[in-house]
Amino acid sequence: MDKLTAIIVAGGVGKRMGRSVPKQFLLLGDRPILMHTIEKFAMAYDHIDLDIIVVMHPDYHDYWKDLIHHYNFNIPHTLADGGKERFFSVRNGLKRASQHGLIAVHDGVRPLISTDFLQKIYEEAIEYGNAVPYIRPKNSVRIEENGHNHAIDRNTVRLIQTPQLFPAAELKQAYKQEYKSHFTDDATVYESLGQSIHLIEGEEQNIKITTETDLYLAEIILSKAGQ
Amino acid sequence: MDKLTAIIVAGGVGKRMGRSVPKQFLLLGDRPILMHTIEKFAMAYDHIDLDIIVVMHPDYHDYWKDLIHHYNFNIPHTLADGGKERFFSVRNGLKRASQHGLIAVHDGVRPLISTDFLQKIYEEAIEYGNAVPYIRPKNSVRIEENGHNHAIDRNTVRLIQTPQLFPAAELKQAYKQEYKSHFTDDATVYESLGQSIHLIEGEEQNIKITTETDLYLAEIILSKAGQ
Repeated sequence: MDKLTAIIVAGGVGKRMGRSVPKQFLLLGDRPILMHTIEKFAMAYDHIDLDIIVVMHPDYHDYWKDLIHHYNFNIPHTLADGGKERFFSVRNGLKRASQHGLIAVHDGVRPLISTDFLQKIYEEAIEYGNAVPYIRPKNSVRIEENGHNHAIDRNTVRLIQTPQLFPAAELKQAYKQEYKSHFTDDATVYESLGQSIHLIEGEEQNIKITTETDLYLAEIILSKAGQ
Repeated sequence: MDKLTAIIVAGGVGKRMGRSVPKQFLLLGDRPILMHTIEKFAMAYDHIDLDIIVVMHPDYHDYWKDLIHHYNFNIPHTLADGGKERFFSVRNGLKRASQHGLIAVHDGVRPLISTDFLQKIYEEAIEYGNAVPYIRPKNSVRIEENGHNHAIDRNTVRLIQTPQLFPAAELKQAYKQEYKSHFTDDATVYESLGQSIHLIEGEEQNIKITTETDLYLAEIILSKAGQ
């Protein structure tokens, strides 16, 4: 049976939104954002051997367990400790992950990914070795460096999302490297070992909820999806 | 007195959103999107000599005049004919524009720009010769060309918005060039004559309404701004 480990990164400690509760715990519809996210993985991959690892700052583990109890949330998952940078959070999650099959790393605050897309990206990762989703910019794009700027062809620009899927053993190996500041996602860590990245077009609705406006937008997308 | 001509491009002919009415005419709050946009310019620049030119497909001129009557919209502006590409719409608008002072080119479907920002970018354009707003990507960014892709430093990436402000005479000169496919905004046209572009950080809320979800989001931003 195929093996997949989902590492769901919910490392936020709740500063940006001016609330005391980190955004992954905020309510979207009738339950916390993070529960939606976990549920999407459980639904999309109910036919394969799936492990779910949720990475979260240790200060919030008890709070999360209370939420699980309160919402009667029953999808099995393992908790790992969040780190200072996303890189260290993923590394902590990877320590709990199987060497076998694929690993999907996903942002806990991207609950709107569709189960159809999760199935599709898994199949692409099986076929091409890895799979990383992107959306296209709607704007013109420029590059600004050293006080100068120039236009680049926006048709070549890919705005990268998650989940990002890689062979488990290779991703674990890649994360043994020392942290570098350009490791802004898993693809950059993985490719630094000489691998090439397989890009696939993602979903516009798969937004990362980082502001209050994003949360309102997520409510709208969710209510439209439910119609 | 300072002179500014605002060219507001509302060339949409209403295909993308699956409705018969082009998006610039859709209701945002109590009146069409385009009226909000025009009003922002009138409010921000009430202390300078402002001309407003609205560029619109000729098929919609009568419809727009009916809307003006219906909503009792009384901000003076000139209508120009929209063209096949944005480039030709702007060129048509420029034919009606003064040679003097500055020209601001703005998307008709970006009604959420703040008057504060409009004043700020005008001052920057006076000081630096031109001014083009951008926002930063929230995602990692890659470039995909010829079947290969590579990461680029997202801190250098600028997602370009409007309004874009330039000296009137120079922008009119720049738009006498032949159209090229990389002319995706006014900055690319302007800089092709050897000018450099002055970038300034724009506003996240200044979204371009191109989908129904964008319109919902705009309603939210508008209602929050009114609180």
